[in-house]
Amino acid sequence: MTKNTAAIIGGGVIGGGWAARFLLNGWDVRVFDPDPEAERKIGEVLDNARRSLPGLSDAPLPDEGRLSFHDDLGDAVTGAVWIQESVPEQLAMKHRVFATIQQNCDVGAVIGSSTSGFKPSELQEGASRPDQILVAHPFNPVYLLPLIELVTTDANDADLIERARALLVSLGLHPLHVKKEIDAHIADRFLEAVWREALWLIKDGIATTEEIDDAIRYGFGIRWAQMGLFETYRVAGGEAGMKHFMAQFGPALKWPWTKLMDVPDLTDELVDMISDQSDSQSGMHSIRELERIRDNNLVSMMRALKIQDWGAGALLNAHDNVLKSGTALGVSLDQIKDVSQPILTLGRAVPLDWTDYNGHMTESRYLDAFAASTDRFMALIGCDAAYIATGGSYFTAETHIRHLDEVHAGAKISVRTQMLLGEGKKLHLFHTMYEGDRALATGEHFLLHVDLETRRPSPPSADIEAAMQMIRDAQAGLGVPDGAGRSIGVPR
Amino acid sequence: MTKNTAAIIGGGVIGGGWAARFLLNGWDVRVFDPDPEAERKIGEVLDNARRSLPGLSDAPLPDEGRLSFHDDLGDAVTGAVWIQESVPEQLAMKHRVFATIQQNCDVGAVIGSSTSGFKPSELQEGASRPDQILVAHPFNPVYLLPLIELVTTDANDADLIERARALLVSLGLHPLHVKKEIDAHIADRFLEAVWREALWLIKDGIATTEEIDDAIRYGFGIRWAQMGLFETYRVAGGEAGMKHFMAQFGPALKWPWTKLMDVPDLTDELVDMISDQSDSQSGMHSIRELERIRDNNLVSMMRALKIQDWGAGALLNAHDNVLKSGTALGVSLDQIKDVSQPILTLGRAVPLDWTDYNGHMTESRYLDAFAASTDRFMALIGCDAAYIATGGSYFTAETHIRHLDEVHAGAKISVRTQMLLGEGKKLHLFHTMYEGDRALATGEHFLLHVDLETRRPSPPSADIEAAMQMIRDAQAGLGVPDGAGRSIGVPR
Repeated sequence: MTKNTAAIIGGGVIGGGWAARFLLNGWDVRVFDPDPEAERKIGEVLDNARRSLPGLSDAPLPDEGRLSFHDDLGDAVTGAVWIQESVPEQLAMKHRVFATIQQNCDVGAVIGSSTSGFKPSELQEGASRPDQILVAHPFNPVYLLPLIELVTTDANDADLIERARALLVSLGLHPLHVKKEIDAHIADRFLEAVWREALWLIKDGIATTEEIDDAIRYGFGIRWAQMGLFETYRVAGGEAGMKHFMAQFGPALKWPWTKLMDVPDLTDELVDMISDQSDSQSGMHSIRELERIRDNNLVSMMRALKIQDWGAGALLNAHDNVLKSGTALGVSLDQIKDVSQPILTLGRAVPLDWTDYNGHMTESRYLDAFAASTDRFMALIGCDAAYIATGGSYFTAETHIRHLDEVHAGAKISVRTQMLLGEGKKLHLFHTMYEGDRALATGEHFLLHVDLETRRPSPPSADIEAAMQMIRDAQAGLGVPDGAGRSIGVPR
Repeated sequence: MTKNTAAIIGGGVIGGGWAARFLLNGWDVRVFDPDPEAERKIGEVLDNARRSLPGLSDAPLPDEGRLSFHDDLGDAVTGAVWIQESVPEQLAMKHRVFATIQQNCDVGAVIGSSTSGFKPSELQEGASRPDQILVAHPFNPVYLLPLIELVTTDANDADLIERARALLVSLGLHPLHVKKEIDAHIADRFLEAVWREALWLIKDGIATTEEIDDAIRYGFGIRWAQMGLFETYRVAGGEAGMKHFMAQFGPALKWPWTKLMDVPDLTDELVDMISDQSDSQSGMHSIRELERIRDNNLVSMMRALKIQDWGAGALLNAHDNVLKSGTALGVSLDQIKDVSQPILTLGRAVPLDWTDYNGHMTESRYLDAFAASTDRFMALIGCDAAYIATGGSYFTAETHIRHLDEVHAGAKISVRTQMLLGEGKKLHLFHTMYEGDRALATGEHFLLHVDLETRRPSPPSADIEAAMQMIRDAQAGLGVPDGAGRSIGVPR
């Protein structure tokens, strides 16, 4: 695969987040930002991204692309497939930047703007090729959150929009295509409404910044992380349905439940009040600490949603399948060239939620990894989701883990699996986990094929028998690995 | 401990959620609701609560209290310590209910209202003892979400408020004390602002219900589940601080970023549009399915936050410590009467996030449970957080798990631990997991005491040696348990 190139115009937290998203997905990234601090700032965002994004996936990401910094805007955009503008929210500046970009970039490149404040028609005004410019509005941290508001106008042609959509999806993002432009797009309208309401609550002395944050994160915030507004209300409405819910809550529209007919003045006094309250709420942590706490939380919750295959977790699972397809972790048994050696059954980065406060991988997560390897081995011999749906599967009867060395969050680990026995209802696997060539742990597993109805041992299908026979023959030359059949000595 | 009694006036989703929260925390619950369907409806909420709440804790909940239904409101409130009113949002009806409650209840009882629409001063109007009435506004599902808006007036005395606060905390709730009453309290003002904005977006054809939900749950919704509005913006503002952030976003207050100067009419057409869009978004799942999906997601994310000890997860951890304190899982070694038998090191319900799509406990979670038992055993012999901070700890070198039987989500499991060896740097533990008397699995663990600086084996403290000696002497009479020292046979 030839590497795609992205140009990042304007660094900072948002531009840096885009740079990280592209780089860690294997793109080369060319940055233009006149700020002398740009390289340092983007480096800091990249540090955060490198510790959190690779492990979010249950599949290995491509090798990182090449990052370069350019003093000349025209130079930076040369050869770029995607150009992302994240300069300050001043329309005249954006117009000047687009003019220079379009003098130098490919006619077929996508020019995306991170703007929250301008509509795409405003950005396109006076451009030499307005059809090339669209809004691709991300959410911080860009390297973790999947939402992109993709806002277009009639000037954009369908082909460019489709190409933009597909490229965003390939980065693990979810482009929400907003076909009818509106100030602040969609999500920021909600944020602005809540922000204005919150300013009133603080100005009027009803609640502090901390109390407002608690009112959000201990209640509807957790609900909104997995279902949004309407699905949550649909559930609350119960069997009576959405119409009933609306009939019940409709009258509240006439009540003084929000102050948003009006906007508070951001006086120095109000700004100081908020700033002081925020210091006493969060001042015990540096911004760098808060970023890491936030990323640990986001990765942990998004990975929790992966197991439920819901919301942002369902997006991640779909993206993992794309990442695996065509690789050694996605092919079928007959597509693996050499099964005479232990078979690759896992490749991934150690995610943040698998580690303790020291950053070392937690004891029980070794079994998470080995269980994923066992699942992959089962799928290879034909015990996949479709087979399991017919009523047969393997249950683990016994497991023996030896810890040989430690490993940290972010490390790329792999597991290779030798089949010690695969005959009739019995399956005996020996997994070895590595970081590079360094062995970290072994996992020895004895499984029985079972009838899922009776939950009792039963013979597997003929296809599974044949696949096991094939591996048995191929791996016959491998000796018994070091540590297999081992027990913990019992003192007398 | 004598059981506390709660009276639930008005069932439904909210009243039922309160009933579940009290019952599962060991309170007796007396329900009054004239709806002939009340018993069925509360039963359905209870079913959901029983499958999700007990496992949310890493500690065992008290035995469930007794649930009774009463035809007479006065009868229901007799002897209740807490009376929770969740009747429809009509002020005159609420006043009539409070009058009857106060004719029959204890003078010292707390009367909480679930109202979102009325201020406590409105509820207190005309009451015989206004000081007894306050707002305790919960969030659906009440059995999982910790937030309670506790809104009081000057009529409430400090002692009653403090008692109400403490009782809510004892139920695992987070009372957010709103000292200055305001329409819709705090959280619902944000919900109402977002709701009004969302109605406009649908009416104007900018986005569908599904697109709005995606705009929330793939972006700021996940952020808000762990930090709220202000802490999120503090992080986004970076080192420059909250004032810089506000200076940057202040001008947006003058821009047309929300329509909330105005309120849309809920015409039949708009109601139909929303209802139809919601059907095509979520209609493939019944409300019962959506409730379970929601609860699976909430439990998974809240437990992910527990591991990070942040937000709702930090609240849960604090509550677990209260639940354990004084029980066999919270005392020190010298407070355990009999260590001659295997020691109780875990007691909990199997949480929803530990099970597969079939509801069976997942392979790797057995090791989660055994690792928690090992941690408890380590703490018992003196290797607790304070000791670890001095630079010593135990690392697991080898683990052997035997799966003997299956167990489902919600089952109460316990682990008992025999020490096979505890001398010098060596610690050899044998855990057996039970549901009641039924053995589910064994976990045999060989650990080495290490110097956390060098990561090499080292002798433990004299106190730990002494504690191990004491257990060794006490457990000398126990034989080698069945399955200890076992290996998986390697075929030749």
